Amino acid sequence: MSNPFRPTGAQVWTDLAEHHQNVRELSLQALFDDDPRRFDAMHCRAAGLVLDYSRNHVTLKTLDLLQRAAEAVALPEKVEALLNGAEVNTTEHRPALHTALRDFSGRAPHREDVEYTLARMSAFVRALHAGEWRGATGKPVTDVVNIGIGGSDLGPRMVTDALYDYHAGPRCHFVANIDRAELDRTLAGLSPETTLFIVASKSFTTLETLRNAESARAWLRDVVAREGDLGRHFIAISANVKRAVEFGIDADHVFPMWDWVGGRYSLWSAIGLSIALAVGMDHFNALRRGAFDMDEHFRTAPVLENLPALLGLLGVWYGNYWQAASHAVLPYAQALRQFPDFLQQLAMESNGKSMRLDNNAADYSTSPVLWGSVESYGQHSFHQLLHQGTQLIPVDFIATLHGGTDDMHHPWLLANCLAQARAMMTGKSYEAAREELIAQGMAEKEADALARHKQMPGNRPSNIILLERVSPAQLGALIALYEHRTYVQSLLWQINAFDQWGVELGKALSRRIHNELTGGTVDASLDSATRGLIELYKAAAEE
Amino acid sequence: MSNPFRPTGAQVWTDLAEHHQNVRELSLQALFDDDPRRFDAMHCRAAGLVLDYSRNHVTLKTLDLLQRAAEAVALPEKVEALLNGAEVNTTEHRPALHTALRDFSGRAPHREDVEYTLARMSAFVRALHAGEWRGATGKPVTDVVNIGIGGSDLGPRMVTDALYDYHAGPRCHFVANIDRAELDRTLAGLSPETTLFIVASKSFTTLETLRNAESARAWLRDVVAREGDLGRHFIAISANVKRAVEFGIDADHVFPMWDWVGGRYSLWSAIGLSIALAVGMDHFNALRRGAFDMDEHFRTAPVLENLPALLGLLGVWYGNYWQAASHAVLPYAQALRQFPDFLQQLAMESNGKSMRLDNNAADYSTSPVLWGSVESYGQHSFHQLLHQGTQLIPVDFIATLHGGTDDMHHPWLLANCLAQARAMMTGKSYEAAREELIAQGMAEKEADALARHKQMPGNRPSNIILLERVSPAQLGALIALYEHRTYVQSLLWQINAFDQWGVELGKALSRRIHNELTGGTVDASLDSATRGLIELYKAAAEE
Repeated sequence: MSNPFRPTGAQVWTDLAEHHQNVRELSLQALFDDDPRRFDAMHCRAAGLVLDYSRNHVTLKTLDLLQRAAEAVALPEKVEALLNGAEVNTTEHRPALHTALRDFSGRAPHREDVEYTLARMSAFVRALHAGEWRGATGKPVTDVVNIGIGGSDLGPRMVTDALYDYHAGPRCHFVANIDRAELDRTLAGLSPETTLFIVASKSFTTLETLRNAESARAWLRDVVAREGDLGRHFIAISANVKRAVEFGIDADHVFPMWDWVGGRYSLWSAIGLSIALAVGMDHFNALRRGAFDMDEHFRTAPVLENLPALLGLLGVWYGNYWQAASHAVLPYAQALRQFPDFLQQLAMESNGKSMRLDNNAADYSTSPVLWGSVESYGQHSFHQLLHQGTQLIPVDFIATLHGGTDDMHHPWLLANCLAQARAMMTGKSYEAAREELIAQGMAEKEADALARHKQMPGNRPSNIILLERVSPAQLGALIALYEHRTYVQSLLWQINAFDQWGVELGKALSRRIHNELTGGTVDASLDSATRGLIELYKAAAEE
Repeated sequence: MSNPFRPTGAQVWTDLAEHHQNVRELSLQALFDDDPRRFDAMHCRAAGLVLDYSRNHVTLKTLDLLQRAAEAVALPEKVEALLNGAEVNTTEHRPALHTALRDFSGRAPHREDVEYTLARMSAFVRALHAGEWRGATGKPVTDVVNIGIGGSDLGPRMVTDALYDYHAGPRCHFVANIDRAELDRTLAGLSPETTLFIVASKSFTTLETLRNAESARAWLRDVVAREGDLGRHFIAISANVKRAVEFGIDADHVFPMWDWVGGRYSLWSAIGLSIALAVGMDHFNALRRGAFDMDEHFRTAPVLENLPALLGLLGVWYGNYWQAASHAVLPYAQALRQFPDFLQQLAMESNGKSMRLDNNAADYSTSPVLWGSVESYGQHSFHQLLHQGTQLIPVDFIATLHGGTDDMHHPWLLANCLAQARAMMTGKSYEAAREELIAQGMAEKEADALARHKQMPGNRPSNIILLERVSPAQLGALIALYEHRTYVQSLLWQINAFDQWGVELGKALSRRIHNELTGGTVDASLDSATRGLIELYKAAAEE
């Protein structure tokens, strides 16, 4: 999309476009050379996190314009609207009150519901940890399997993995895929007598989740002979108590899901039960507290000291003025290996849309592709493209100041992170590459040619986000940071971050095609490719 | 990059640009409606795989032009050059002979080296499986830990995971990250007495790998008291025998790496030892054989029936004419959950470059970002953006015809895959969305508005690649398919797919910054941000 970016009638969008023309040739290295205090001016803190945004294509003028862009979409008012429960999810006439789930101020709506549910979670965690909750044959629970998909999976899966060092409960496993292989591999090491399943589905009709729950129930049946006893091995997190009870779960063991919390924002709710079981309720509350601290920062800090606002504005600056089509998030911490997967849902399901809040089509780009992997893996893989590829890809590096007591590893990890950020910024000139080769004894003619392949353009922007460590509180703050970044971007793009209509058609079609794969008449109005592949499947099934 | 794409002086690039103007408004659905035989014409087979490329923005004219594009870069000759050992890696003056590692024709170079190494691998696998290879305290090996990174990790890690159903040896684990947490989590469940480490590093100096190997050696020392006995717990895959011996590995237990195989193409070599240990030598050879079948297909099939050529050409069609900035690969098979990570290295480290073979800078886009995840996870996450986002993102769907015996799962998995491909193609019109809402009883005015958010533009292209199942042979063919796709694209972009100079600067910088983090004087010429973060680290370390 190459239309000018004008999400509202304000002048600032045009001013930013003009300003982009003025700064697009500036070198990041020159900006640092010109201002020895650039780092001092361009890093800030919130909830224990440090954001260094100095390696971006921004001058003080850019920041001033970005601040005006935030004003043009009424950012402070919209933040209050979000936190106070206004109907920010306009197409579904709902608020998006994930912040209420971690409120420690007493101001947020739904306080009683939240506190009551937290008390229930706490009691359940205590009973299970104490061995009071037992399976049908009288044994305590050693393994918990969360069956859910999307928001009922990615959040708790990522957090539980990230907080591995804090585990103090049963082993927690996660099954999402309708491919039975995931369930089978998970159950291979477990005993039915000591396994508890959490079935997480708002409607209790999610295809993948129900199929896996049914297969889990069948796996239990051989051991747990009497049907009624299955209730000792299943709890649910759902808004549909009736369906859960029909499945065989006690109504008392159904934890709630609410319309005012979206799936991809729900790990702070009962959906976080697997987290609480793995690390204990205190650490779960520390996670919530870290997020609350970020919420308070988001609500109160001025735009240019506001971490979520800065990240959101910078993303739009690159996406809509520099035409960056993707954004890489690279955590230098093994604990955060699943963080990019989690962020893919958060960013792309929230803002991968083309229709504006005013029901007109956006004629500009909205969410870029978000991708990344745990580091230092990527340095030996796709960093080649980040350094020498033909696209501008802004990067968020995430690292920790502390990383265990082994000096042979963590300082190298952090050094690699800082080195990548600096290498992307400075690059390497043709002359420097050529001199190196000649100093190594290479003939001039060969050096002339090879240096062209070794030069790196540099001038590639990045943020560095530093945590003290991947603790529950810091992780909570980090997640909230990206949640709010996503909201800020939705405001700038003038879209609703909280619906997801784009996933509906596929669901309906899959029911129809499943029917045709399994014996139903194949509709002649289907395209020839879908029909052809259905026939291939049927032929293979008869082999 | 918006320059016209003219990688060579041939006319075809301009013809393609003109043709793009003619077809860019065509609807995929209309192409199907106009030609009932489109699927018949646009699917083909190789090595047991089916490629359905009918849902692409191509007409017969497009295919004709793409075939001419292949001729313009002398594709058949270049394929022969690759397979025969020509110096296709021009900047390093090396061939790229990964195909020789899986040659079953007797024609490929280095036959003796390959067969001798396979025989050594086979003997080692047999001895370990038979319990003849024992640890220092006399116990057989139950767990193997491969320590490597990049090409010495991603390939064997992905294949070993994908072939889980074929495991018949010790448990195989993989450690790559210099973050000690990965090693610690891996070793937590293992016994030093029964653990064997494979240290995989061509130079035997790779920072991450050596640090992890040293920490593994320290972990063993308490149990394996005599230093000499450490040799029973370590083998190496390396070109540097001297360094491996200095580390404490017997020269007889060093398997070779060769200059004529690149890291990201090396899983077919001794780097695949962990695969062979996990699934046995027969299955490893079946993997090689499947890849060989694809090599033969690549060498002999006409361009428009040639799977790697078609995938490569289509990728360039979208990247350089439709300005697609990324490409999604979505495997509908839990076994292939790590396949996108593997492909990220293959595609982006190979072709994420700006310098041409003729030492001139490319003035057009080269490798797009490759991303994706195992399905059906993504359907509940980023598919929102694929359906309703503002970018054109071509997709490769990968699925299997067979998927175990449980009819409750696999037909649904495949139905979901076919449904996503169809939904991306057909979309949903505003009128259809509106009618549905009114039929559900919604007031007209509200339906008018909401239907705008529920409509989907469709016309989004995809390939479907069908495997019979994720067997060793089919997986081998699938990997070779993408290897050759990558090579085809490098020819079209006129770049060297086999070097990776872009990763060098970061490595050098990280040594310098590590020194500064750990007490060395901080160079005042460093940018203020890097210096500032080093100071933050030092202050935190003193806390």
